Amino acid sequence: MIIDGLQYANWSEKVFRQMREGGVDAVHVTIVYHETFRETVLNIEDWNRWFERYPDLILHGRTAADVVLAKETGRTAIFFGSQNPSCMEDDIGLVEILHTLGLRFMQLTYNNQSLLACGCYEDEDSGLTRMGRAVVAEMNRVGLVVDMSHSGERSTLEAIECSTRPIAITHANPFNWHPAKRNKSDDVLKALGESGGMLGFSVYPHHLRHGSACSLDDFCGMIARTAELMGPERIGMGSDLCQDQPDSVVHWMRNGRWTKDVDYGEGSASTPGFPEMPSWFADNRDFGRIAAGLRASGLSEADVAGIMGNNWLRFFEESFVGLQAGAHPDSQAAE
Amino acid sequence: MIIDGLQYANWSEKVFRQMREGGVDAVHVTIVYHETFRETVLNIEDWNRWFERYPDLILHGRTAADVVLAKETGRTAIFFGSQNPSCMEDDIGLVEILHTLGLRFMQLTYNNQSLLACGCYEDEDSGLTRMGRAVVAEMNRVGLVVDMSHSGERSTLEAIECSTRPIAITHANPFNWHPAKRNKSDDVLKALGESGGMLGFSVYPHHLRHGSACSLDDFCGMIARTAELMGPERIGMGSDLCQDQPDSVVHWMRNGRWTKDVDYGEGSASTPGFPEMPSWFADNRDFGRIAAGLRASGLSEADVAGIMGNNWLRFFEESFVGLQAGAHPDSQAAE
Repeated sequence: MIIDGLQYANWSEKVFRQMREGGVDAVHVTIVYHETFRETVLNIEDWNRWFERYPDLILHGRTAADVVLAKETGRTAIFFGSQNPSCMEDDIGLVEILHTLGLRFMQLTYNNQSLLACGCYEDEDSGLTRMGRAVVAEMNRVGLVVDMSHSGERSTLEAIECSTRPIAITHANPFNWHPAKRNKSDDVLKALGESGGMLGFSVYPHHLRHGSACSLDDFCGMIARTAELMGPERIGMGSDLCQDQPDSVVHWMRNGRWTKDVDYGEGSASTPGFPEMPSWFADNRDFGRIAAGLRASGLSEADVAGIMGNNWLRFFEESFVGLQAGAHPDSQAAE
Repeated sequence: MIIDGLQYANWSEKVFRQMREGGVDAVHVTIVYHETFRETVLNIEDWNRWFERYPDLILHGRTAADVVLAKETGRTAIFFGSQNPSCMEDDIGLVEILHTLGLRFMQLTYNNQSLLACGCYEDEDSGLTRMGRAVVAEMNRVGLVVDMSHSGERSTLEAIECSTRPIAITHANPFNWHPAKRNKSDDVLKALGESGGMLGFSVYPHHLRHGSACSLDDFCGMIARTAELMGPERIGMGSDLCQDQPDSVVHWMRNGRWTKDVDYGEGSASTPGFPEMPSWFADNRDFGRIAAGLRASGLSEADVAGIMGNNWLRFFEESFVGLQAGAHPDSQAAE
């Protein structure tokens, strides 16, 4: 079982075929950075066309059972996620609507302050807002996972505390390994693990020690140490693979429509584009290299299997079904 | 089994309790007259709150199995429909999105010309448009029923011909019984029956001979004759009950945002509001009276059971599931 906790590729038949070559059973894909609700629906319409066009390669994942179905039928289950609550605008009713349309992860913030919480690039993080607490409760009710990958420290700790269901940091690494704004403190990682949450390890070079030159050994050693810190069942992959994207896309990710200046995010004026991927992870066919690296780092076969996919599968089982009584059987509580 | 093919009440706990008192197992409810996509989503959000608030009275119906579930658990299954394609705007991708959100019926027109077809109040009906043919094919694919209740004669006949799956006229009566613009010719009714489609009989006074004074005997005699014309398995109820609505709502139905004048539709300047319901059908508790009237008209017990609900149940079984391969099990073809 291989499950990737985050990708935002320039989707194509080529990418879907590489998922199959790599034996990837499920991927959480980003469908929103700064889009409004209506724009998000247009992005889902694009996915609906891909599902219609490539039914032999991909299927729309809604529950953990869809990952099993995908594996059994030789396909990849695609789970939707948003990196920003822009898709729900200022309307808490859209949380359930988006879940019905397939959304399974939503970040409360993307680097900046949002209506819900504070991003990791703001000077000051005042934690969850009033609306943020209401929306976390609604996300808990319907089965939409709180993702704090791009959030600030205090907001992240408050989300872990406020959420009645485990949350995720789908794509980030430990700050103590590589001190980037997007990487997470030991305090956050410990609280995340103790609450039953999940961390997905990012291969995006700005999150790696020595960037694009990071070695597979170094990356896998970091994972082995994080397994000790959080528990080996609380971690998985979250590659943050942005395959085949033009640099205009990273500009959109960083700047959206919120500034007239240019924000370079983790890049700089001299290196504004997507960084080069490490030699050992170019695309979906390279997950086997990471599994081999994890074995070489001394992790047990069961731990490697957990990190490569089984841990996300268990988390999907626990997270995607609503808690409300009296609803449609598909959305009734399994708990 | 009691299934009503159309209602647009001013929804409330009172109305939901009357559905239970009347033993109504399922209702096709209108959620759109002239609303845009975003406004339609707001209406679905309102329904989501009702489902959350009254889980002991109602549930969101998506498939025929939900009607059986509703009956078994003493609730009413609510199926969404639109009286107008305004909800899909000019975007064929919204057909699948709306189906995912629960829409199960969509009229191609509401009295006026639409992007898809012609309404029954236009002077000239040029039939299905280019987009209309494309949208009917997409509705067939995803399992969204074409409803031609408010459409013109030619558009209706072309929709029956163009659609690869049976269509519905959810709320109308035979023109030969009461010659109203909204009632349907024998040609339409025969073509509808032969194609496996369904007619729902309306109790809205403007569709009744002698209006509000129409007798139950006269209404049930008309149904018995239509059973001979179309086949007793092609007909059901479609009460068009607009319970507890203020007259401002019928003004919105007729005028939407399309005119600055006042269109009185089936009413007139001297009687602009909702007409008074016939004495024998005030609300959801009165379906038993119609069943008794049908028996008195000489219809067999099996035919009465078909008309009161079994025919709609079979139609729901045939109509609400998508035809595409490779999709989620919930939306795979049952055919």
